[in-house]
Amino acid sequence: MDSVTVSTAAKPTLRVAAFCGSLRKDSWHRGLIRAAEELCEESIPGLRIDHVDISGLPMANPDLETDGGEGFPPAVEALRDRVRAADCFLFASPEYNYSVTASLKNALDWASRGNNCWADRAAAIVCAGGDFGGARASLHLRQVGIFLDLHFINKPELHIRAFAEPPKFDGEGNLIDAVTRERLKKVLLSLQAFALRLQHNNKDD
Amino acid sequence: MDSVTVSTAAKPTLRVAAFCGSLRKDSWHRGLIRAAEELCEESIPGLRIDHVDISGLPMANPDLETDGGEGFPPAVEALRDRVRAADCFLFASPEYNYSVTASLKNALDWASRGNNCWADRAAAIVCAGGDFGGARASLHLRQVGIFLDLHFINKPELHIRAFAEPPKFDGEGNLIDAVTRERLKKVLLSLQAFALRLQHNNKDD
Amino acid sequence: MDSVTVSTAAKPTLRVAAFCGSLRKDSWHRGLIRAAEELCEESIPGLRIDHVDISGLPMANPDLETDGGEGFPPAVEALRDRVRAADCFLFASPEYNYSVTASLKNALDWASRGNNCWADRAAAIVCAGGDFGGARASLHLRQVGIFLDLHFINKPELHIRAFAEPPKFDGEGNLIDAVTRERLKKVLLSLQAFALRLQHNNKDD
Amino acid sequence: MDSVTVSTAAKPTLRVAAFCGSLRKDSWHRGLIRAAEELCEESIPGLRIDHVDISGLPMANPDLETDGGEGFPPAVEALRDRVRAADCFLFASPEYNYSVTASLKNALDWASRGNNCWADRAAAIVCAGGDFGGARASLHLRQVGIFLDLHFINKPELHIRAFAEPPKFDGEGNLIDAVTRERLKKVLLSLQAFALRLQHNNKDD
Repeated sequence: MDSVTVSTAAKPTLRVAAFCGSLRKDSWHRGLIRAAEELCEESIPGLRIDHVDISGLPMANPDLETDGGEGFPPAVEALRDRVRAADCFLFASPEYNYSVTASLKNALDWASRGNNCWADRAAAIVCAGGDFGGARASLHLRQVGIFLDLHFINKPELHIRAFAEPPKFDGEGNLIDAVTRERLKKVLLSLQAFALRLQHNNKDD
Repeated sequence: MDSVTVSTAAKPTLRVAAFCGSLRKDSWHRGLIRAAEELCEESIPGLRIDHVDISGLPMANPDLETDGGEGFPPAVEALRDRVRAADCFLFASPEYNYSVTASLKNALDWASRGNNCWADRAAAIVCAGGDFGGARASLHLRQVGIFLDLHFINKPELHIRAFAEPPKFDGEGNLIDAVTRERLKKVLLSLQAFALRLQHNNKDD
Repeated sequence: MDSVTVSTAAKPTLRVAAFCGSLRKDSWHRGLIRAAEELCEESIPGLRIDHVDISGLPMANPDLETDGGEGFPPAVEALRDRVRAADCFLFASPEYNYSVTASLKNALDWASRGNNCWADRAAAIVCAGGDFGGARASLHLRQVGIFLDLHFINKPELHIRAFAEPPKFDGEGNLIDAVTRERLKKVLLSLQAFALRLQHNNKDD
Repeated sequence: MDSVTVSTAAKPTLRVAAFCGSLRKDSWHRGLIRAAEELCEESIPGLRIDHVDISGLPMANPDLETDGGEGFPPAVEALRDRVRAADCFLFASPEYNYSVTASLKNALDWASRGNNCWADRAAAIVCAGGDFGGARASLHLRQVGIFLDLHFINKPELHIRAFAEPPKFDGEGNLIDAVTRERLKKVLLSLQAFALRLQHNNKDD
């Protein structure tokens, strides 16, 4: 495909593999992924969320690998397929004790084993939390991303102070604040733009 | 107990709850805890290792809590009892993707829920890894420790470059290098001294 | 001095060397140190602030050292004397670009050269900033403190959201919010308690 | 410029603004920049190093700014011009006390004030140090880069263990190890590729 075609054709649809770091049924972070799905369907042409459920994974353990480190338990193989198929990533990451959750780290680690499935794609982080909105967890996730070879967008950052007025989420974790919804949309647009920017040129090469 | 008694009596035996961040059977980090057990028995009066197995914990999930956040699954209650009973902590923490393992983070998070079981005690980290010996993971663990209210020793640090000559571990994860064993002993002595220093004065107050 | 004397005598007065990471004349962080001075004089017996001005230091450069790394420019020698004379430390640290200021890092580095002047004492951090109150800078300062061998208090943390209502500082950087002043006092009391706890036992040994 | 021209024309020459975090005359990091200059001239068409001397800057202080924050001291204005003119960045960053040097942080901060001069360009870090080759400092620099909106390459990382055999630098800081020189070249090629990848598409838009 040459450059002219890229610049005149419709943008390709990018698949965003989305991960919720919380296992709570009514998690705010699950609600953020639902809101992202709606935003993409309603008003972001070319971006589609693929919510990857990570709740059923075994705890990461190299002893569970087979075939010299290239075989994995079925739930892990399924995760790795979804990660490989994605064009970019959205992490809805709560902050537990100033870092990411075990659940999210587990998924990050499983899909990095052997041939790293994450490599060289754009990513964005959204968090909701107390006073600092999960900002410390996102710093840890970014450090993990160095080795995974992720390219995080820098701006805008979305660290939602979930207890500040007006209410941000209802009791089932649904995002109910229009201003925050608009901020989430800006994150998605920035992720899309960065993913396309990284991707276009790969096709040139 | 008054101050005079403290300063003239034998040191009390401190219980070190030790955690291995790896689930591998032949893990170097399990080997480090075994070596720590041996060192304490052989040559560190007043320090005893209590290896807490964290492999059977469910993945941290607030939905599994009962009694308004004060009840936990049985394996978690058992973990929390061991953490509360400890005088200080030893973390044998591998580095997965520049951070701690999901398995270790999971234990840290479970025992922090509700009434934080970790609070206000001394802790030490030992890691083995590639070129940097797990140093990045220990930085994340320290950041988690701020919220858990752990007091980490600063020196000595033990980040073992496991692939550097001479060999540090055998195929079953046993620590076989005398120099590294001596460095591990110095970490344990520093942990003991810091734990006593923090503890004595509590009794004075 | 034996333990009995320590536990029955009045608490010794602890000297807190305080450092302002900002060079601005009307800095909030300078205002926090002034407020800390007032609080100690008014209502914290046994604690005295020694504000160490770091604005006149040359930029850290090992080529300026003499006597095989044991001689320093006069302003640096003066800094090192004040650091060595302190019982504990208070860092009023702004956040510039998610980290500490050059000015503060410069002082930290100068006093660490040769025989590290910071070693083995308690420390606390207070920050004022935008949405996250400088929390990211304090994480960096804590990492620096590992090598300096500082023992930071974990709680309470004081990251002041300076633009949130009600106003926290006046135009000259004076702390004018009573609630924040009370929070600052709690930081100072926690620092005092931790410094005494670390110090008592040194005298026992 | 349209896409066709970009994809068929020779690659444009990219200007790499390079910064040495050490003020030492015989600094290894200065030596790394000299080696980078040589490598670009000898064997990397399309990449040119512009070594920006940051030794003469005043310590960052908003009180030195004029014109409502848009005017700066002459040395700072000169720095900001060089940063703005660059296509990407190379940081030769020593590790002082587990973080970046004051000197480097000072330059980063000055060029971020008002209209951030660093925004939206590729960057790479090279460090030389003791056992961990400055890896901890590079983590801090990456965190600063989030707010500066820098896009760091993830691979390869170059953290030189300067005291490991064979010798890496001579007494004047010249890089004398061929293997390390080749590793430095790979960093430069990766930086070039990433800068072009980010840049091409900007021109498409």
